[in-house]
Amino acid sequence: MRFSRFFIPTTKEMPKDATLPSHQFLIRAGFISMEGAGLYNFLPLGKIVLDKIKKVVKEELDSAGCNEVSLSIVTPQSLWDESGRASKMGLEMLRFKDRKGTDFVLSPTNEEAMVNLVKNRVKSYKNLPINLYQINTKFRDEARPRFGLLRGREFLMKDGYSFAANEDDMVTEFNLMEKTYRKIFTRLGLEFRVVDADSGAIGGSGSKEFMVLADSGEDTITVCDKCEISANIEASKREPKKPYGQAPEAVFNKFKTPNIKSIDELSEFFKISPFYTLKAVIKRAIYDDSDEIVVFFIRGDDELQELKGANAVGANEIVDASEDEIKEAGLVAGFVGPVDLKIRYVIDSEVRSQKNIICGANEKDYHFVGVDISQMICNSADLIVTKEGDKCTCGGTISYTKGIEVGHIFQLKDNYSKALNATFLDEFGKSKPFVMGTYGIGVSRLVSAIIEQHHDTKGCKWTAQTAPFDVDILVSNIKDEEQLKVANELYQKLLDANIEVIFDDRKERYGTKINDFELIGFRYAVVIGKNLKDGNVELIDREGLNKSLISVDDIYKRVLEELS
Amino acid sequence: MRFSRFFIPTTKEMPKDATLPSHQFLIRAGFISMEGAGLYNFLPLGKIVLDKIKKVVKEELDSAGCNEVSLSIVTPQSLWDESGRASKMGLEMLRFKDRKGTDFVLSPTNEEAMVNLVKNRVKSYKNLPINLYQINTKFRDEARPRFGLLRGREFLMKDGYSFAANEDDMVTEFNLMEKTYRKIFTRLGLEFRVVDADSGAIGGSGSKEFMVLADSGEDTITVCDKCEISANIEASKREPKKPYGQAPEAVFNKFKTPNIKSIDELSEFFKISPFYTLKAVIKRAIYDDSDEIVVFFIRGDDELQELKGANAVGANEIVDASEDEIKEAGLVAGFVGPVDLKIRYVIDSEVRSQKNIICGANEKDYHFVGVDISQMICNSADLIVTKEGDKCTCGGTISYTKGIEVGHIFQLKDNYSKALNATFLDEFGKSKPFVMGTYGIGVSRLVSAIIEQHHDTKGCKWTAQTAPFDVDILVSNIKDEEQLKVANELYQKLLDANIEVIFDDRKERYGTKINDFELIGFRYAVVIGKNLKDGNVELIDREGLNKSLISVDDIYKRVLEELS
Repeated sequence: MRFSRFFIPTTKEMPKDATLPSHQFLIRAGFISMEGAGLYNFLPLGKIVLDKIKKVVKEELDSAGCNEVSLSIVTPQSLWDESGRASKMGLEMLRFKDRKGTDFVLSPTNEEAMVNLVKNRVKSYKNLPINLYQINTKFRDEARPRFGLLRGREFLMKDGYSFAANEDDMVTEFNLMEKTYRKIFTRLGLEFRVVDADSGAIGGSGSKEFMVLADSGEDTITVCDKCEISANIEASKREPKKPYGQAPEAVFNKFKTPNIKSIDELSEFFKISPFYTLKAVIKRAIYDDSDEIVVFFIRGDDELQELKGANAVGANEIVDASEDEIKEAGLVAGFVGPVDLKIRYVIDSEVRSQKNIICGANEKDYHFVGVDISQMICNSADLIVTKEGDKCTCGGTISYTKGIEVGHIFQLKDNYSKALNATFLDEFGKSKPFVMGTYGIGVSRLVSAIIEQHHDTKGCKWTAQTAPFDVDILVSNIKDEEQLKVANELYQKLLDANIEVIFDDRKERYGTKINDFELIGFRYAVVIGKNLKDGNVELIDREGLNKSLISVDDIYKRVLEELS
Repeated sequence: MRFSRFFIPTTKEMPKDATLPSHQFLIRAGFISMEGAGLYNFLPLGKIVLDKIKKVVKEELDSAGCNEVSLSIVTPQSLWDESGRASKMGLEMLRFKDRKGTDFVLSPTNEEAMVNLVKNRVKSYKNLPINLYQINTKFRDEARPRFGLLRGREFLMKDGYSFAANEDDMVTEFNLMEKTYRKIFTRLGLEFRVVDADSGAIGGSGSKEFMVLADSGEDTITVCDKCEISANIEASKREPKKPYGQAPEAVFNKFKTPNIKSIDELSEFFKISPFYTLKAVIKRAIYDDSDEIVVFFIRGDDELQELKGANAVGANEIVDASEDEIKEAGLVAGFVGPVDLKIRYVIDSEVRSQKNIICGANEKDYHFVGVDISQMICNSADLIVTKEGDKCTCGGTISYTKGIEVGHIFQLKDNYSKALNATFLDEFGKSKPFVMGTYGIGVSRLVSAIIEQHHDTKGCKWTAQTAPFDVDILVSNIKDEEQLKVANELYQKLLDANIEVIFDDRKERYGTKINDFELIGFRYAVVIGKNLKDGNVELIDREGLNKSLISVDDIYKRVLEELS
């Protein structure tokens, strides 16, 4: 490709509102342009990168036995009414009426349509499992679109859906997809972690996220310094904390603790470590049609992970309870404990079998000592935030890192097939709902994620599988006939060898060309300039910006070696 | 690909409302499914065909120097306000508000967005011409979506836009696109015509349509039996009609013609051929902000082509005038003529220099004879419908045929760039609007068009470049180990030779498999069945359903020969 015939509008101008390097560089280097808030156009270079990513995704999915389809982007809202999501999706789901007044939706995801496609078309267990996917445009009307392609409104997503006859087969597909996703992100040249994610109401280990590690990531993930275990902070588990400080051994007893409300005050008062105290976190749990006040009990030195809390009571979300709500529920703030508590509560698993606990007595200015939680009849669940320095189950030490979510695989079971009455006949002729999995990759988001992980102060550094061109031939002085001749010859030879090469034949200064090379991030530049007098050209690798002088006679061979 | 692992839900059930063969077969053979009125999903087979078409389109456009981009499907309505199209596009353009109340549009086409993309990014004539295209989803809220993919609401379109510094360069790009489109449709295996199309207000020969010939086509096109000239009926030209019958030579005179209103009555009354009579067609011409009554005069034996009429007066459209409107305009129905007519009128070019015309005298029961149109001061234009049997300008005879529009190329000039203030600096440093062309291909529509042209009563017959698979290996009795072994070996050999082969390994009856082969339309079937005892298999070509017995030892070679 000749640069002069290609639409690559690079600019020095910093785009407004662009805080992240990927956002700045992709716009400045002419990969994308903004059409409106959260709406982006892919320019020729951006389209090439996008297609390269799509190709890797498609090749790996096809070789894993998935079938590619392409669903209508506009879907009837009636499908979403049937599944019950029309009311749950909120403002992110863009709805409109057509000219006849019928309600439609710009697909934010396609579970309903995909179930509808398979329903009545796959009738027997003999035709299962199947795994269908598409790489198609999605729309989510984000309240605050930002970070360029990382949180746009219109975006390209690979969404896949597996249909199986039973949970075992679903898990087999799920595991195959994890393996396939690992291959995809590895081929794309990314450093990533597969993390356990919150799986909401479904529970179990049925949800994993694929995180590209990058300082700018919106998600905090926990990693171990010894083993492979990683998790989204919302789903992270740790080895139960070891006791520290002396246990306050005591017979069960009520103790006057005037004005002693906080964990710090309580530890100080009894001269004990917070490990033996119980912190009450009072929340309002919100369900589809109702809400209630719930208390979560965790150790005094732990923190409640809100999503874990919500999952523990099956709520859509939990929010702070107001002072009035606390009073109305009959709770005495600062002195709440589980003994004889009249409202719903959950105790953290790590405290479940703890003796010698000190906790509120549900009476102003009183705490209980010598509480044996293990003797109580109560619900428990993992409720706490894993912190840096906590121990992993393998014995290693956990730390935090930042990630960009680029993939998510999820065991749906029969959540949608049941609601949409999508069934097959099993080997006994009995009608059963499909057992499903759902698998997503943020395809356009990956364009940005790659650059968040691979850039320097000068611009993009594309990975081997994603660079729009591998080699940029750059003529220092386009009027120098000898330089131009050498460049043309090398260009033709590389083209003949099927190398993805761009020839910067523009009538621009050398400075402009080298800046564009660094900004755009082709993998290598061959500079044909003043060294040609001595029979040399310069080879620059974008990764480290290392320069080497290479003889004109050797450059072709050297480029092939670098790329092999 | 193994048939058993591929989602191909064929059915004998005739889809509701499907009148065209392509619509019926594409649904019955599992290429597409309906999601809602005018909304279609592409199933695995359909997606393969669609991708093959996209590949041909992309390859030819790229090698013609075009750059592929991909614009946001959702565009801000403000862009359409700026170009003035927001008010002209009507209900076909689907509009909606986002969560913040801002107006957006589901792109029906992308002139505005593409101009906006180039504006301020291409600043000098030195960077022109450029030609950008995308293959992307479009939405038009058709009042009556029908015929499957032929007139859907959501569809895949290739839309391209060229930007040049002057009209000569625009025409060069336009001609290059015509050549490129011819290559594309030829590679796809289609019989097609490039027809002159109406170019509306712009005029000239700046608009050509690419028509796939098919009996079911919605468009009537005129073709010549001697030369290459084809045209959309709305733009078709002919050699001026030769006079027939004796000319009614007479001195200009008013003649009493009581109750003689129709052309037939007039010819009969004067005993002349209708060639010498003048038919007045009274219409209401509708403009952006106004309307008026206009009379179109054509020979008595011709018919008014309404689009030609509208173009002749620069109207958006022309409609029949009501009796009241005719009266209000002071016209006497049945006796309208151009002599001393007080309202706007246009005369057909073929009558423009005609002497001895008989026409209405604008007075009840009177006609003029001996009218010499050539002496009148009036506007003329090509107004008439070309009919079958009319002569082509080459001397050949014109006939009608039916076509499906699959491509349209158009010289836009500066219509959009001016409105959107998109300019560049010319070689004298002067700011000028881009001179544009626009070029469309109905990519998803082509899937249907191919089948409309290539089918029989049993199903689809895909062309070489578009068949989802070239060879279908079909085992008659899957329990026969010898048959299965031969099939597996042939399958593997063809895969190794990079042949696109599908192996129908389903546990289905032979009848089901052969019916599916004919319905789906793979190019060849190799039937491995009872003839295997004699060392033979059957080769069937889908085109003619011809069967030949081939020795097992030769079948691999023979398949390669057929496909080469």
